[in-house]
Amino acid sequence: MRIAVLGGDGYCGWATALYLSRKGHTVAIVDNFSRRQWDHELGAQTLTPIRPLSDRLTTWRDLTGNFIDSFVGDVTDYDFIAATMREFEPEALVHFAEQRSAPYSMIDRRHAVFTQVNNVVGTLNLLFALREFYPDCHLIKLGTMGEYGTPNIDIEEGYITIEHNGRKDVLPFPKQAGSFYHLSKVHDSHNMMFACKAWGLRATDLNQGVVYGTMTEETARDEALINRFDYDEVFGTVLNRFCAQAAIGHPLTVYGKGGQTRGFLDIRDTVRCVELACLNPPGRGECRVFNQFTEQFSVLELAEMVQAAGSKLGLVVEINRLPDPRVEAEQHYYNAKHSKLIELGLQPHYLSESLLDSLMNIAVQYQERIDSSLILPRVNWRCPNNDRRTRPSSSVATLPLEGPALARKESA
Amino acid sequence: MRIAVLGGDGYCGWATALYLSRKGHTVAIVDNFSRRQWDHELGAQTLTPIRPLSDRLTTWRDLTGNFIDSFVGDVTDYDFIAATMREFEPEALVHFAEQRSAPYSMIDRRHAVFTQVNNVVGTLNLLFALREFYPDCHLIKLGTMGEYGTPNIDIEEGYITIEHNGRKDVLPFPKQAGSFYHLSKVHDSHNMMFACKAWGLRATDLNQGVVYGTMTEETARDEALINRFDYDEVFGTVLNRFCAQAAIGHPLTVYGKGGQTRGFLDIRDTVRCVELACLNPPGRGECRVFNQFTEQFSVLELAEMVQAAGSKLGLVVEINRLPDPRVEAEQHYYNAKHSKLIELGLQPHYLSESLLDSLMNIAVQYQERIDSSLILPRVNWRCPNNDRRTRPSSSVATLPLEGPALARKESA
Repeated sequence: MRIAVLGGDGYCGWATALYLSRKGHTVAIVDNFSRRQWDHELGAQTLTPIRPLSDRLTTWRDLTGNFIDSFVGDVTDYDFIAATMREFEPEALVHFAEQRSAPYSMIDRRHAVFTQVNNVVGTLNLLFALREFYPDCHLIKLGTMGEYGTPNIDIEEGYITIEHNGRKDVLPFPKQAGSFYHLSKVHDSHNMMFACKAWGLRATDLNQGVVYGTMTEETARDEALINRFDYDEVFGTVLNRFCAQAAIGHPLTVYGKGGQTRGFLDIRDTVRCVELACLNPPGRGECRVFNQFTEQFSVLELAEMVQAAGSKLGLVVEINRLPDPRVEAEQHYYNAKHSKLIELGLQPHYLSESLLDSLMNIAVQYQERIDSSLILPRVNWRCPNNDRRTRPSSSVATLPLEGPALARKESA
Repeated sequence: MRIAVLGGDGYCGWATALYLSRKGHTVAIVDNFSRRQWDHELGAQTLTPIRPLSDRLTTWRDLTGNFIDSFVGDVTDYDFIAATMREFEPEALVHFAEQRSAPYSMIDRRHAVFTQVNNVVGTLNLLFALREFYPDCHLIKLGTMGEYGTPNIDIEEGYITIEHNGRKDVLPFPKQAGSFYHLSKVHDSHNMMFACKAWGLRATDLNQGVVYGTMTEETARDEALINRFDYDEVFGTVLNRFCAQAAIGHPLTVYGKGGQTRGFLDIRDTVRCVELACLNPPGRGECRVFNQFTEQFSVLELAEMVQAAGSKLGLVVEINRLPDPRVEAEQHYYNAKHSKLIELGLQPHYLSESLLDSLMNIAVQYQERIDSSLILPRVNWRCPNNDRRTRPSSSVATLPLEGPALARKESA
């Protein structure tokens, strides 16, 4: 299958592009390296030393003989994306090419506006390009479980049957997103539903949970293929962040009560879910929604798991409860359905101690790249202007690391 | 009360600004004249000869002694809107300053992207400016009943209690908008709900129905105060359009079966609803939703009412069923609640024969300004690129008008 992975130089995108290439698909990566640019802006970098895309692709070709084409440009530039599609002639578009950090979108007005315009216009451009050139091509769009918020009822997969005053209808599940980023995905979802109905397009909205892990079978083949591992307060997702914190002896940063419960999945399941969506397209005119996660945990549960795993490795891991910089329920009901991808054949990699060990070992291996001044939250949801130019000094001690973590790696 | 009317040079905005001024409020108009610019772009003009804003405001001051200040600029320009707010110090912001035509948003990709970016960024700017400078100021935002679409259940005012699997919550009513314009208002609504929750702002989302009429007590005082009357296929709303068509002997353009049912209201109720919202602000942190309409009709019912009214005036009014250029249900269940504004004291002006007569008489009075080539729909929802540069010739005959319509006006 001819599959374009938009945002294929990013965290989920890179792992997905390699996986699909290994599985025999003809893959193209479309990226403008915004993600690398945001690191420069924030003075942050991935824990792992990722290589330029051209090096990554050359290494992949040398190792496997598989060619992945690359198109460098911006999805918000319609001429570029239209020309790319006409040249590559995709059967599926996998769209990761959005600004994906909630804290980034909450820095200030400029970042909020950028996030919503960038994400909404990018997706609108894809919908128009599909309508104009490849109406049969399947759009697989990364949404987020965060679109639903934390309602006091079970969360269904995209749609809910509502009985009201003696009548009944199947309607889009109500959305209560908790940041301008999450809202941008809500906007995308509404635009996609309409475009599928008006133009007979076919789309899958993957409402993904929080992804953890960094290694996949493909990225592990050579250090030049290594994937991103974000541990900073803006782009680092919670479990990866905790593992990095534990590895360098920084207290785990639990926001508020820690009862915030979310859906989680291993990056090895992200790539498989995307393939399952590609291989099982919806009919024309259908905007299908999958909840893409495998387990749900509260933030405090995760912190305690990381603490226990650290303890086994001889690390003393403290849990530090900080005032929640976000506006969110710190304790709430949460029960989100996630059966559709399982029905298509997903065999989940559940969160295990060995995965936690491996994440901590990676953090230990690259610990000299960790800047501990990037760990504490500095984007406050309640403040419309979070000035990040003044950075706290890196005074939080990086504890000396003992042998066990590294030893464990050697024995793994 | 100090009230800023954003988009105060437009159809609803102008009537609202004058009404609020007459009721003793201190009013400022904020506008960048986009609406007049779109007329130039489309080669259209309002049926009624509206004056420049400066003339309008001078006339109003001469007649009433009331000064309405004006700030000329774009809501998407944050520096402008922040400076305007700091100077005017509003207690309420009434936000009409959006691109409000569904067909305009469906012309092509550029118009879709413009509509969504313009509307979403404008509202984001207001939310940030309120948070930064006047968190106590009340945002009254014009939404649309079109956000809900046509679900097979009763439409509530903004929120619905959902019982599901033995649990219950009050959640935002699911949205199924039918154009990129309507979707832009859905996006605004989600952004507003979040900002109220995160920042403790107070907002009212007025999901307005289709407005008809042109005269209010205020605009009728002098021809220099006359309001817009749009009859063209892009900006003309259905009842005003039908009256103009009837007046010049053009068959009424009913799209499809005509069973499309919507909520409607007289522009004299629009202005009162806005004042009621201003006078009864929600609490801090509340994003309140009112469904702002007074009666619901199907398009075919309206056409038949206009036909009957025309017949009384001696006009032969044909009804022409055209293929529906929109993607929408042509027959459907529709029952939308609209009690909250009534509870606050709204006394509706229900649609009457005399109103229809008066609309037709206005159309007759200014008939030489009607360009009949602008009547037939040329924006097809199913087409991603509606080229409007080639216009059909104005070959549809403008029937000679007999005395009765004019006579009727004299006797009114």
